[in-house]
Parts: sequence; C-alpha cells; structure tokens
Amino acid sequence: MTTQQLVSEIQKKKSFLCIGLDVDLNKIPAHLLQEEDPIFAFNKAIIDATHHLCVAYKPNTAFYEAYGIKGWKSLERTINYLNEKHPEIFTIADAKRGDIGNTSTMYAKAFFEDLAFDSVTVAPYMGKDSVEPFLAFEDKHTIMLALTSNQGAFDFQTKTVDGKELYKQVIETSKSWKNSQNLMYVVGATKAEYLTDIRKIIPESFLLVPGVGAQGGSLEEVCKYGMTKNTVGLLINSSRGIIYASNESDFAEAAAAKAKELQQQMENILK
Amino acid sequence: MTTQQLVSEIQKKKSFLCIGLDVDLNKIPAHLLQEEDPIFAFNKAIIDATHHLCVAYKPNTAFYEAYGIKGWKSLERTINYLNEKHPEIFTIADAKRGDIGNTSTMYAKAFFEDLAFDSVTVAPYMGKDSVEPFLAFEDKHTIMLALTSNQGAFDFQTKTVDGKELYKQVIETSKSWKNSQNLMYVVGATKAEYLTDIRKIIPESFLLVPGVGAQGGSLEEVCKYGMTKNTVGLLINSSRGIIYASNESDFAEAAAAKAKELQQQMENILK
Repeated sequence: MTTQQLVSEIQKKKSFLCIGLDVDLNKIPAHLLQEEDPIFAFNKAIIDATHHLCVAYKPNTAFYEAYGIKGWKSLERTINYLNEKHPEIFTIADAKRGDIGNTSTMYAKAFFEDLAFDSVTVAPYMGKDSVEPFLAFEDKHTIMLALTSNQGAFDFQTKTVDGKELYKQVIETSKSWKNSQNLMYVVGATKAEYLTDIRKIIPESFLLVPGVGAQGGSLEEVCKYGMTKNTVGLLINSSRGIIYASNESDFAEAAAAKAKELQQQMENILK
Repeated sequence: MTTQQLVSEIQKKKSFLCIGLDVDLNKIPAHLLQEEDPIFAFNKAIIDATHHLCVAYKPNTAFYEAYGIKGWKSLERTINYLNEKHPEIFTIADAKRGDIGNTSTMYAKAFFEDLAFDSVTVAPYMGKDSVEPFLAFEDKHTIMLALTSNQGAFDFQTKTVDGKELYKQVIETSKSWKNSQNLMYVVGATKAEYLTDIRKIIPESFLLVPGVGAQGGSLEEVCKYGMTKNTVGLLINSSRGIIYASNESDFAEAAAAKAKELQQQMENILK
C-alpha cells in the first residue's frame, strides 16, 4: 500500500485510528475458548465490528508467539482475513525486529512476503544496515522505534548523544538511509510534548502513536503537536482500551463503541 | 540451566563454541529438500555431528519465521530435539526481542516456556522495563545487545552519551536492573579491541560473541581481551563458517571438521 492510499483512507473514514490486536487468552470472553482457533475468532469479531472506524490494524507478534505454532497460525489467519476482506486497511506487524543485514532480510521476508503485512516495526539499536533490508521492499513501510511510550524510554532514548537526545539522533540519522521515504516512526502518546521538536526534523513522516487509552496518553495533545497539515501524518493506536472494553458476549459491540468514540473525536479534530 | 552448569560443560569439553543454526533453504544440500522437514533434517544432522564439540546452539529466529508456520515447526522440533538428546547444552533463541512490560512477558513465555530455550537475546533500546520481564524467569538467561558485530554498530552504539559510549551506558545501567545476575551481553568479535573497557564494567559476565568466521573477527583477539580467569566468560559463535562448510552429502562431516578446528584452537587457548 502506498502512503497516498493510506491518506485517502484516512480522509474517507475521517479516522486515523489503528486498533492493536494484542490477544491474551486470559482476557477474552470465556465462550470463545471453545472455538477451534479462539484468537482468530476474537480478531475476526473485532475486525467485523470495527473495520469502518479505523484505518489500520496492528497485531503485536509477542501475543501470537507466546502460543507457539497455534499462535502463529492465528496470526496468519488474521492477516489473510484482513488482506482478503479489507485490502484498503493498512496492516502493521508490531514485531520490533532488527538484526545484521542478511538476517534482517529474512525478517522482512517473513512479514512482507510470507505474511503480507504492509509494514513492520523495527528497533534502531543496530543501525543502518539492520534497517535498510526492510526499506528495500517496494510499497512496504518500515516503522522505526524513536521515542517509546514506556518508562524505560528515559533510560537511553532521551539521553544526550553528541548534543542531541538519542531519539532525535535516531530520527535525524535515518533520514539519510536508502529509501527513507518508506520510514515511519513510533512516538508514544505519553510523550506528546516532544512532538514539536520531532516535527522540526520530520515535518511530513507518518508517526505511529501508541499509548492513548490504557497507558494514559492524550489524543488532543498528540494531534496539537504532531498532526501535519495535508496528510494528518498520525496513526493513533489503541489496543486494550478497545478490544477489552467488555469480556462478555457483547465484546465486539463494546469494542466498536469504544472505537466509535475515538473516531468521532478524530472527526472533530479533522474539521 | 545455571551459569555454573554452563561453566562445567565448557571445562569438560574444553570448548566455548556456540554454533549458529541459521538455516537458509537456498544454502543447504539439495538432497535435503526432499525431506518432509528439510530445516530440521539439516539441524539434526549438524547437531548429531557437532554436539561433542560445542557447548551452545543458537538458532536465529529470523531464519525460521521467514518460512512461516513450517519454519516455526522446524524451530520447535530443533529445540525439542536439543532438550531431549542434549539437555547439558545451552540453548539460545537469537530473537533480539524487546517491548513494553506486559508484551515482553509474552515474548519471554514464548521462548522460555513454550519453546523452553535456556536464553534469549534482547534489544536494549526500550530500557529497563522492556528487559526485566525476561530477567524474572528463574534459571533462564537474558542476553542483551551491547556492541554488535555489524557496521551499523557505529551509527548509535559507539556514540558518546553523557561522556560515555552508548554501549557502555547500556551495560553500566543494566547492572542495576532486577536479577541482573542473569544478564549476558552480545559483543561482536569484530570489535575485540573494545573488550578491555567492557571487562572493566562487567568483569565476570558471560559474553556472546558472534562475528568469528564469515564476518572476519579473530578468536585469539577476543580471548586475549575478553576471557575471564575462572569461568572463561565467553561463548564464541560461528554460524555460516561451520554449517555451510559444504553443501554436498558430506555437509555434516564438513561442519564437524570446522567445529573441531575451532574447538582445538579453544583447547589450546584454555591450556
């Protein structure tokens, strides 16, 4: 999917919501556990109830890997269902991968070819040659960790490196990498006040913003400091706040209601 | 497995060799492609031929994920085979994971419980709360990226942060994390000259050292600067240099010969 197609979808739906599909079998409605593939059954119900309200879905791979081969099958079914039923929706494998060159190419194949996601999240610690293999894939997007939503972000990311915080060095440096037009960045909603500075470095790049909802970030603050004029430039992710709105038989409707709330706040902001 | 058990195995085998099981279907002998599970067939043959020469095996997860569910099955078969036939051998899931707390716990479950590896590699960028969930598992080891073997290591890892290179900050900071006695570190063999400084910060911790062989690192240099007096403190990894020594029907014997070469160099160094 091209960035322009993503922007069109945002304009059409008046939404820049991304829904995180982080399925924990301890949190989903008990009746689903009788299904042959409870994780996929849960995701399918959530997707069917919310696809008109969001422009992206983001399964975090940890939640699938934790269930081994069964989990990987559920992930495959989920991405296949999305690509078949809703090819206009942007898909993100939240995998935070990164390795030396030839190995990163294998990860890129895993997520862009075998599973056919539109994008994958990567970690920057290993530098340019660990990220460029992802950027080499045409019409795919690489979303690099910059400033994350957790407390641990203050351990290294905000430390000063050669006169500039590490997360700014990461963003700045990555602009010179090959095919960097395919780069997006992760910036946590809990760090909204940093967005003004970030926009000085990358005025137009898309930002994937987790941390609205359960982690306490504010949608208004993020939009105030991070939104771009023409393309919106934001994908706001909510996971637990939407998918676990209820753990009864009405879980999909409850998720849709929560998604609708966020979509309407977004529609108001876009006006 | 405890660190003491690993040290005993090193002393018994006079080897601190780790063999990287990074299986690429384009590189393995053609006759194996007719097997029902070519990746496992390859790994099994390599393990059967080399287990007496090494103390650790390290499958890099990228090479398995690239083949989807089939690949994940091969990884599961490989770790199950190792745990059943050679429980004395230290196993490393080279996965380079890391995410916010509750998500890192899911990754830890994937590799420590579902797949029952002894250790997993993690990335430090997201800080303390992204690594401590791995450290919480008893008798398991967390191997954190410090200074990697690739060129991209110079993009951020060697940059100066508050008067000290980032990789040193990462090592130094992590010493205060909960259960940090279960931490090991990745330091590339191509960066042997940095080991003296690293040993000043962590005199006893085990280091996983990739980059000997195909990437050009020197075993002698690494041992000169990085070996500890009582426990050796090093796991030297070679992947391609061993497992692809031949792609004919003699591939396992050729791999054993290469592993034997390294083991004998190690035995000489240990004298």
